[in-house]
Amino acid sequence: MNSAPLSGLYAPSLALVTDLYQLTMAYGYWQQGLQDREAVFHLYFRKAPFQGGYAVAAGLALAVDWVENLHFSEDDLAYLGSLRGSKGTALFPAEFLEYLRQLKFICDIDAVAEGTVVFGNEPLLRVRGPLLQAQLLETALLTLINFQTLIATKAARIREAAGPTDQVLEFGLRRAQGFDGGLGASRAAFLGGADATSNVLAGQRYGIPVRGTHAHSWVMSFTDEVTAFSAYAKAFPDDSVFLVDTYDTLEGVRQAIKVAREMRANGHELAGIRLDSGDLAYLSREARAVLDEAGFTETRIVASNDLEENLITSLKQQGARIDTWGVGTQLVTAYNQAALGGVYKLAALRKADDSGWDFTIKLSEQVAKTSVPGILQVRRYLNEYGKPRADMLYNTAEPLPDQLTIIDPADLTRRLAIKPETKFRELLEPVFRQGKRVLDLPTLADSRAHAQREVQSLDPSIRRFLNPHTYPVGLEKTLCDYRTELILEKKPVRGA
Amino acid sequence: MNSAPLSGLYAPSLALVTDLYQLTMAYGYWQQGLQDREAVFHLYFRKAPFQGGYAVAAGLALAVDWVENLHFSEDDLAYLGSLRGSKGTALFPAEFLEYLRQLKFICDIDAVAEGTVVFGNEPLLRVRGPLLQAQLLETALLTLINFQTLIATKAARIREAAGPTDQVLEFGLRRAQGFDGGLGASRAAFLGGADATSNVLAGQRYGIPVRGTHAHSWVMSFTDEVTAFSAYAKAFPDDSVFLVDTYDTLEGVRQAIKVAREMRANGHELAGIRLDSGDLAYLSREARAVLDEAGFTETRIVASNDLEENLITSLKQQGARIDTWGVGTQLVTAYNQAALGGVYKLAALRKADDSGWDFTIKLSEQVAKTSVPGILQVRRYLNEYGKPRADMLYNTAEPLPDQLTIIDPADLTRRLAIKPETKFRELLEPVFRQGKRVLDLPTLADSRAHAQREVQSLDPSIRRFLNPHTYPVGLEKTLCDYRTELILEKKPVRGA
Repeated sequence: MNSAPLSGLYAPSLALVTDLYQLTMAYGYWQQGLQDREAVFHLYFRKAPFQGGYAVAAGLALAVDWVENLHFSEDDLAYLGSLRGSKGTALFPAEFLEYLRQLKFICDIDAVAEGTVVFGNEPLLRVRGPLLQAQLLETALLTLINFQTLIATKAARIREAAGPTDQVLEFGLRRAQGFDGGLGASRAAFLGGADATSNVLAGQRYGIPVRGTHAHSWVMSFTDEVTAFSAYAKAFPDDSVFLVDTYDTLEGVRQAIKVAREMRANGHELAGIRLDSGDLAYLSREARAVLDEAGFTETRIVASNDLEENLITSLKQQGARIDTWGVGTQLVTAYNQAALGGVYKLAALRKADDSGWDFTIKLSEQVAKTSVPGILQVRRYLNEYGKPRADMLYNTAEPLPDQLTIIDPADLTRRLAIKPETKFRELLEPVFRQGKRVLDLPTLADSRAHAQREVQSLDPSIRRFLNPHTYPVGLEKTLCDYRTELILEKKPVRGA
Repeated sequence: MNSAPLSGLYAPSLALVTDLYQLTMAYGYWQQGLQDREAVFHLYFRKAPFQGGYAVAAGLALAVDWVENLHFSEDDLAYLGSLRGSKGTALFPAEFLEYLRQLKFICDIDAVAEGTVVFGNEPLLRVRGPLLQAQLLETALLTLINFQTLIATKAARIREAAGPTDQVLEFGLRRAQGFDGGLGASRAAFLGGADATSNVLAGQRYGIPVRGTHAHSWVMSFTDEVTAFSAYAKAFPDDSVFLVDTYDTLEGVRQAIKVAREMRANGHELAGIRLDSGDLAYLSREARAVLDEAGFTETRIVASNDLEENLITSLKQQGARIDTWGVGTQLVTAYNQAALGGVYKLAALRKADDSGWDFTIKLSEQVAKTSVPGILQVRRYLNEYGKPRADMLYNTAEPLPDQLTIIDPADLTRRLAIKPETKFRELLEPVFRQGKRVLDLPTLADSRAHAQREVQSLDPSIRRFLNPHTYPVGLEKTLCDYRTELILEKKPVRGA
């Protein structure tokens, strides 16, 4: 096996994209006869990334695809059968592997649509079904939703900084975390607000517009910049963006203008120039002046070089004349926070005698990190303009009281009473029922448009980068009271 | 295409894992008749990651695999043929797509073996071949080498902190940047020094030992911890590691001991307990004391929870009694520096009249960032104990002088004269010749062992985390002088 260093992109089956403990627990549940006990898990993160005020949910379509194709191939089972415990005996007995071979996925999944804005502690996904199956989904769902949501959120922030009319191009493949890291990042970046990608596979796979300029090596392959730019313009007379900083940026702009004049004489226009180093505020202003003076007022200025939302904001404040932002490393790796800490927690388990549910919690030293029991739904209340006002988590397995109150679980004294006439929508919608998909997935372009509307619907105080306002998310009062009860019951009382 | 949200792992062809500009430049070179001009590119990074003193080269086997499978499928060509420029005309003419269909890879590639320690500005890979082909390789080579080298280096640092006897388990899949981000990270983490992974696909694909414990949900699925632990021990009597912090950590340890006593009565031993929250220094010392007192001196203590090299160092300094480190997010995403900034620069181009080479540079405002011209090799000089003393980059296309002097390109006055009898080895070794692989790749386990020896061969001052000593890497004097000449020739002299 060591001699097959294939890239991950060839995997014929993806059932083994999981942590070993999912399979050891599955065996344990099966051995205990607990495999079909009905269970409910929620997938959620605790804090929005980048010290921001919101996140953009993403990854559902990838998760659906993974779930729909979930099966253990013969190769997978042979590998699992080859695993040995420390005493040299098989880790998994043949009967259990046969069970996995026959496994037919029959869970219900409810999820938040891609592009919807979400907040800490809100389930993005709820899985309800046989304990063994629901547990088996954990790792892959987390991997997909965590990463997609992280990058879509980063892209939304970069879009916020660039403003509605500038173009944002995602250029990050070469610094991405593997091929699929790059492909997934291109997808999520587009969903979150980028206009195009340089990643050709992402263009092919997802229909994202592809864009590009040329490298320094292009310029270095010719005797001088004018020759290099002319040759590129010959190949792409209406789509040339010249990289002008191979030797000296402003000198490069002047060379670009020489070629742009020839192009114009032949009925073509130079699309843009690209700045990839140096002081982008200064250089873009100077380049703009030189271009404008030469009559190339429509030639765009593309900038790249470790750009992210704060740098773009700063460049704009400095009067940079950049209208196209090439964003790479910082976007595709979410460099300043490279992972979203999403978790997947058991919240309800059917009683052994089938007489109802046991709602479960995972305690923590910090009450805010303690999980929420129940079969949860997220209800988003809207203000008079139809914009998000507050979100309420409630347990769908219990009746709601007439008078609804939302309580902040991190501060039980912070409460919000909901008027009966307040409009709302519910975020979790059915995706799978009994293992069958019941939701038509929107196109990626539709999810992107939804994301733009969603982010714009948030108050600017929630969207800002520095110390954003906290959007109210709380527990419905009866759920909150029940959770507190459960914590007190489970938590040992210490003496002192 | 929007309706096919497949995960990246299914891609049948990987030629499109590239930036669009590689293909637009390819078309431009082809149009100019420059496609077969012989060119040399080097792949290198400028600074070791994590403010560290070294990096562990990795990713070569994945790069070899990608290169060996490189071809444009009919689907790829159909997609490229569908692309339109801004005026609505085809971006690529049919003749060029036919050229891509026929393309046969014939480059030479030389590379540093996986696991070798490398330093800033040293080529990890050198590609020599037709300009169009060598350029086309850029993006995928960067994606693979950048990420693998980044994670292997992170793993080596974590191994350094854990010490030679503790176990390091990589647990990060759920926070990885996509499926392949997780798979690639597991591979590189093992190569760099981790002992095992939780990622089952990585176990299957690469033969990495797989390991795991159980989740909080396991405990929550039973009425109490003793029942949960007993059930798990029944499934894995000799391989159980109990997670003890679902409700209260030290109480959990006491419950684990109850079950461990039953296990011992039946001829089995509890393998370990896992701490996943709270003050790991305090809790591990307390847990060790409780376990030892109960006679379970061999039961291991596994710790997890955002661990990385500095935290592990600190825990050890505080006397933590942890002997197995479960490392996730921080390792698989290289959280504190989520990308290695490797670049791929043109360094030589055959003259048009075939009379020799033009050596090329990319200038930069900082002289240290200016590329190095030539067809480079890295010679590593060894001290009297056979350990690395200094590295010298030289141009293999020019004769070496008798008296060798290494010059620091960042400070031309820092020089090191090499005695003729000094032993050395050369880091770049032939991998492809004329497109055929000429190197037998080592197994991943062999590369891992090589990495361990390599890191150990470095002086501790270079391995330390805080302000490591800078290992000397310089240019051979004639190369350095030539480069300075070229810079002065290319750089415009400014007036003031």
